[in-house]
Amino acid sequence: MRLRRKPWIEESIKQYTSILFLEEPKDLKGKWSTQFAHPEKPIHVEFGTGKGQFISGMADIHRDVNYIGMEVQEGVIYYAAKKVAEKEPPLDNVRLILGDVSEILDIFAPGEVEVIYLNFSDPWPKKRHAKRRLTYRDFLKRYALILKEDGEIRFKTDNKDLFDFSIEEFTEMGWKLSDVTYDLHQAPVPGDVETEYEEKFSRKGNPVCRLVARRPKSN
Amino acid sequence: MRLRRKPWIEESIKQYTSILFLEEPKDLKGKWSTQFAHPEKPIHVEFGTGKGQFISGMADIHRDVNYIGMEVQEGVIYYAAKKVAEKEPPLDNVRLILGDVSEILDIFAPGEVEVIYLNFSDPWPKKRHAKRRLTYRDFLKRYALILKEDGEIRFKTDNKDLFDFSIEEFTEMGWKLSDVTYDLHQAPVPGDVETEYEEKFSRKGNPVCRLVARRPKSN
Repeated sequence: MRLRRKPWIEESIKQYTSILFLEEPKDLKGKWSTQFAHPEKPIHVEFGTGKGQFISGMADIHRDVNYIGMEVQEGVIYYAAKKVAEKEPPLDNVRLILGDVSEILDIFAPGEVEVIYLNFSDPWPKKRHAKRRLTYRDFLKRYALILKEDGEIRFKTDNKDLFDFSIEEFTEMGWKLSDVTYDLHQAPVPGDVETEYEEKFSRKGNPVCRLVARRPKSN
Repeated sequence: MRLRRKPWIEESIKQYTSILFLEEPKDLKGKWSTQFAHPEKPIHVEFGTGKGQFISGMADIHRDVNYIGMEVQEGVIYYAAKKVAEKEPPLDNVRLILGDVSEILDIFAPGEVEVIYLNFSDPWPKKRHAKRRLTYRDFLKRYALILKEDGEIRFKTDNKDLFDFSIEEFTEMGWKLSDVTYDLHQAPVPGDVETEYEEKFSRKGNPVCRLVARRPKSN
């Protein structure tokens, strides 16, 4: 299975090099805007882009924003690239990169990012794994460093425990919360796009929680 | 029962007039500090004082604060007065008043209060009663008006739905949250006192949620 699949992905992925940045993303730290047709637009980043329904949909609606989607799995990001490539009219405002969230300080310069999206991150339910949750305070510190002064995180999850944990972490670290909802689909946010997971599973099960957290003033 | 009980309360309550303010509290609007032995101390108010375990305990520990406890039921506030009177050394920093939270703009002047305590308020679980919850936005607006600029609300409840609702309301109205916890007794707040309800029921059942909400800058 692995042998059959890998060459196919490796071959196919090449057609998307205008979307998918396969080089070392650290080389572009502080220069991400140069990767876009319109470098003056603000940069929004999604950590954990998955198969890309969210970022391709957002980039399609919000042409005034440059989007960077980060995903750790090559076999997954391929589908995201495909989804971006299929949009009409073509998108010139998305770049996908392979990388791990623990490396973002090497990938993005201070203040380079205006908005960070965290969508349905792994809840890591066991207490001993709390440090792996993407809203754990050590991650929040890193996000604060790459965000502009007025920058913010937009966070969605259907895992109530992760949401509660995140509210504790955000407030503990001095982030200012707004737009907190425990049932997003009762009052959807205009201009927001559903992820694959959100559309297929959580709408039929747990309600989706969402919040916006503004970066603390002092870093 | 009512006939037997009322005269006894009415008679007994008189011995506590140094603690329990039985006149019209609106007459003291803007002048509450004059009611205390040390008018220079900040004023903290509890809405829904009940039988007074919290406010008597707090006043005992924090002699540098002047406390006002408000309660709507005369037959309940009597016990609060009794509890305050029994503390040794005697407390000169508590006043109890009979009143309803909907009247606070007539009872307190703008900026007269530094901290508001809401402890285990009625959750009013039915949606059509949401406006009666003491963290409903209309109440938050009134609290903001009587609080000092840096003033805050300290809110405890074991009702998770009320807590979630409150987080939504606070953030929607621009209050800054901090010290959010979904299980207070795992890491108790130093200098905090348990209410009767908290001690007897919620410690054995639902975990206690707590948060601090700082007043929005502009009123």
